Amino acid sequence: MSLPTKKELRKTADRIEPYVHRTPVLSSRSINDISGAEIYFKCENFQRMGAFKMRGATNAMLQLPLHEREKGVVTHSSGNFAQAVALAGKTLGVKTTIVMPEDAPSVKVKAVKGYGGKVLFCDANPQAREDKADEIVEKTGGTFLHPSDQMEVILGQGTAAIELLDDVPDLEYIMTPVGGGGLLAGTALAAHHYGKDCKVIAGEPREVNDAARSLKSGKIESNESTNTIADGLKTQLGENNFPIIQELVEDIIEVEEQEIIDAMKTIWQRMKIIIEPSAAVPFAALLKQKEKFQGKKIGIIISGGNVDLENLPF
Amino acid sequence: MSLPTKKELRKTADRIEPYVHRTPVLSSRSINDISGAEIYFKCENFQRMGAFKMRGATNAMLQLPLHEREKGVVTHSSGNFAQAVALAGKTLGVKTTIVMPEDAPSVKVKAVKGYGGKVLFCDANPQAREDKADEIVEKTGGTFLHPSDQMEVILGQGTAAIELLDDVPDLEYIMTPVGGGGLLAGTALAAHHYGKDCKVIAGEPREVNDAARSLKSGKIESNESTNTIADGLKTQLGENNFPIIQELVEDIIEVEEQEIIDAMKTIWQRMKIIIEPSAAVPFAALLKQKEKFQGKKIGIIISGGNVDLENLPF
Repeated sequence: MSLPTKKELRKTADRIEPYVHRTPVLSSRSINDISGAEIYFKCENFQRMGAFKMRGATNAMLQLPLHEREKGVVTHSSGNFAQAVALAGKTLGVKTTIVMPEDAPSVKVKAVKGYGGKVLFCDANPQAREDKADEIVEKTGGTFLHPSDQMEVILGQGTAAIELLDDVPDLEYIMTPVGGGGLLAGTALAAHHYGKDCKVIAGEPREVNDAARSLKSGKIESNESTNTIADGLKTQLGENNFPIIQELVEDIIEVEEQEIIDAMKTIWQRMKIIIEPSAAVPFAALLKQKEKFQGKKIGIIISGGNVDLENLPF
Repeated sequence: MSLPTKKELRKTADRIEPYVHRTPVLSSRSINDISGAEIYFKCENFQRMGAFKMRGATNAMLQLPLHEREKGVVTHSSGNFAQAVALAGKTLGVKTTIVMPEDAPSVKVKAVKGYGGKVLFCDANPQAREDKADEIVEKTGGTFLHPSDQMEVILGQGTAAIELLDDVPDLEYIMTPVGGGGLLAGTALAAHHYGKDCKVIAGEPREVNDAARSLKSGKIESNESTNTIADGLKTQLGENNFPIIQELVEDIIEVEEQEIIDAMKTIWQRMKIIIEPSAAVPFAALLKQKEKFQGKKIGIIISGGNVDLENLPF
């Protein structure tokens, strides 16, 4: 496989720059004391619509020729990618249709509608989602955007790590969560091209450890159940991001549900920032293998901050 | 009254600079849309120990001669000033004794002890606190630090607004909460010396509206009850900060409890930062008089982020 080049990454960063926030990188003395490492948090919870997904959605939409943008874009998601597509569409004047399962939390449906996205409901299973999205693409001639496995999306997600390495060039590790694999693959590409021997490691909930198992077996695995609080990480790797992850990612560390909740609470209390459960997974992974990371300089991508304040796990 | 000079403020800022964080100034497109104003939040919730009180405590301690530092410092507080004194003492190698009411939340007692402060308990009333503190001062020869009415503390709190005006020089207003009056008086001094016709306005819970009443009556008023969620704002003005507030503060806007909770929730949701109820009061005040602030460039001091995550108001 030939990896996307440094130039492609740079062009992606330049392309989306006017439409996304350059998010701050925060550190905390007490978090460093607790972990024994020197951690730099890239705060994508402060990104527009509250998550890194804004980057990939914007990049994918910007690369559509104008005559295709006119026909609109379509996606299926019950999470942050739905909001990202809706907001990118609003920003770029592109009509967006988002297929959501009928049991999607009303707060998320409201957010997507708030950004001007058209919401269509379907039965709450993956096949129904895909069928519904296909149907709309056929009817409207719109373009389907995949949340994590499209190269434009992967490259867009990688721009967070480019900025992080620009701010802190000598990171020894960058850690991300892994769900569908777009952020992890994009980050690995950025670390490969922009880092100085910077390794990439992901954290994954043991309850949905398909990515860790995929890395071991050499083929894309799926989950039989998805009982994790990290609701952004229930999906599986795709055929475009998996080869990148295989080639460039050093390890995937599995963590328990309680470890995710504890890590999330520690970051809320010590750093005074709101992060969603999925975003706490890499810090939980770091704490799980504390010895390995002792004294190391580590970047962690805080993937998002969209959490239902009326339904917290503590 | 002769006001403290610009030079005194500058010297204060230089003095404490090595010991406190220069906190970030954050903005949010959606908060600006909601309010109709252009708001710059000075995030003292990211300050060391989680509140602006670190500034005043550090300044007061640094101005003690070494032979007095040796005898330690004493304060009474159940809130952020207790933690600030303990952490400043830890940083500067000064022994600290903090008198806390016996019903103080255990999480706060734990925090003070975590910073190395010695905690002594007393009955839960203001007189008992003062008596106990006096007793320790007499016994140890230590120095008493007042949370809000000592000039060194007032000047220290003013340094947050100096930094804010350094980052955003043309603010038309700066808003703070008002409790004991140290932050408000210090901010008013900073705006007076460093602002360009920058007015200062405070928000205050109607349940503890002693400061608003004091400004009207021309003498320091107190509260008969203190039933507010804004637990940092229950105290009253002092003889050192009141004249500064009288001379330099344009207005104090009173807000209801539900308005504080709503403002706090909006900032949590939209900005993904954790702020304590007291810190939401100025934003609630701004929303209450939305028309007045329409299109204006406004700084808001987010006073702190210490909140019990297991006991949230939403």
